Amino acid sequence: MAKQDRAVRTREQLIRSAAEAFARSGFGLSSLSDISTGAGVSSGALHFHFSSKRELGEAVESAAAETLRGIIAPCPPGHPDPLRLLVDTSHLLSQRLTQDVVLRVGFGLGNDATWQEDAKLWLKWRSWVGATLVVAGERGDLAADVLPDAVVSAVTAAVVGSEILGRADAEWSSCRAVAQFWSLMLPRLAVRRGETGLP
Amino acid sequence: MAKQDRAVRTREQLIRSAAEAFARSGFGLSSLSDISTGAGVSSGALHFHFSSKRELGEAVESAAAETLRGIIAPCPPGHPDPLRLLVDTSHLLSQRLTQDVVLRVGFGLGNDATWQEDAKLWLKWRSWVGATLVVAGERGDLAADVLPDAVVSAVTAAVVGSEILGRADAEWSSCRAVAQFWSLMLPRLAVRRGETGLP
Repeated sequence: MAKQDRAVRTREQLIRSAAEAFARSGFGLSSLSDISTGAGVSSGALHFHFSSKRELGEAVESAAAETLRGIIAPCPPGHPDPLRLLVDTSHLLSQRLTQDVVLRVGFGLGNDATWQEDAKLWLKWRSWVGATLVVAGERGDLAADVLPDAVVSAVTAAVVGSEILGRADAEWSSCRAVAQFWSLMLPRLAVRRGETGLP
Repeated sequence: MAKQDRAVRTREQLIRSAAEAFARSGFGLSSLSDISTGAGVSSGALHFHFSSKRELGEAVESAAAETLRGIIAPCPPGHPDPLRLLVDTSHLLSQRLTQDVVLRVGFGLGNDATWQEDAKLWLKWRSWVGATLVVAGERGDLAADVLPDAVVSAVTAAVVGSEILGRADAEWSSCRAVAQFWSLMLPRLAVRRGETGLP
């Protein structure tokens, strides 16, 4: 492996190990030596990449934001089924939050009292949901009595809440909670084509 | 004030101050001296009531559980409108979570990596929602194609998510988010009496 590839891989291992430490002990109680040990590298290698725990925290957030950007590709105006895209993407986000500790901690750091930065990944998710609903509305896919703002809030809160509950309680699968949310919400949101009175 | 009343009040002040410290710094980084100072009492007075930070954490959780019990009175089988009770109670819980730091931290401690107890207040809330829906179902108030389990998950996740988002972002009023959730969910859940085809 070329020297540069090794450096990239070490950096990624450190970010992952930092996320694992933050998830385990919170940002405030995580130590740099735990993080370098977890990544299987020396303390010197850690300091080559990161000058402080704060810098590691910022790197976790940036990596999580990058992953989120890959999940929420913008919905183009002519998309054939924006509501389906919304459902599928919320499932994908929920699944990735369960599997990817860097993404989870990037979202979760905002709830860690010992970490004062504001990644606001939830706000990015909320904006994406809003923009996707605009496309759905323009296509006439939304029931007339549904307020898009209300849907944005409900969908955002549902994904946040599923993630938190999934974290606290292994019996609570966040994917199941998201599926149940949509089994209720989708029939409410989607315009009922058969009931418009039109032929 | 009688000596015993003063002791009860000091204990309450310490529990509140502990909750404020945990909300500010997380459980792991909160110090007993911050907590006694915040309560306006001496370190000796703190140790008269609590032998450790862990005991203070447990007292915060017990106080929060007691407050929750007051919010979720059991819904009796003959209740005239269990769905209305569900909506009103979720609003009340959301409002109290915003106002009452002890309740908030009692719920939130489960998400603090530096605190390993399991208060599981969310599970108590979830059980109550489930029991209230059973009463609604027995009255014939639920639409036929609605799975009560799905509603329990969605309502629990919505209240959890609203609380978390309200905490991270002042613009996000958790009460508004809960109202928006119900504006979408209630028409979906409730049986549409006018559409039964019966006279």
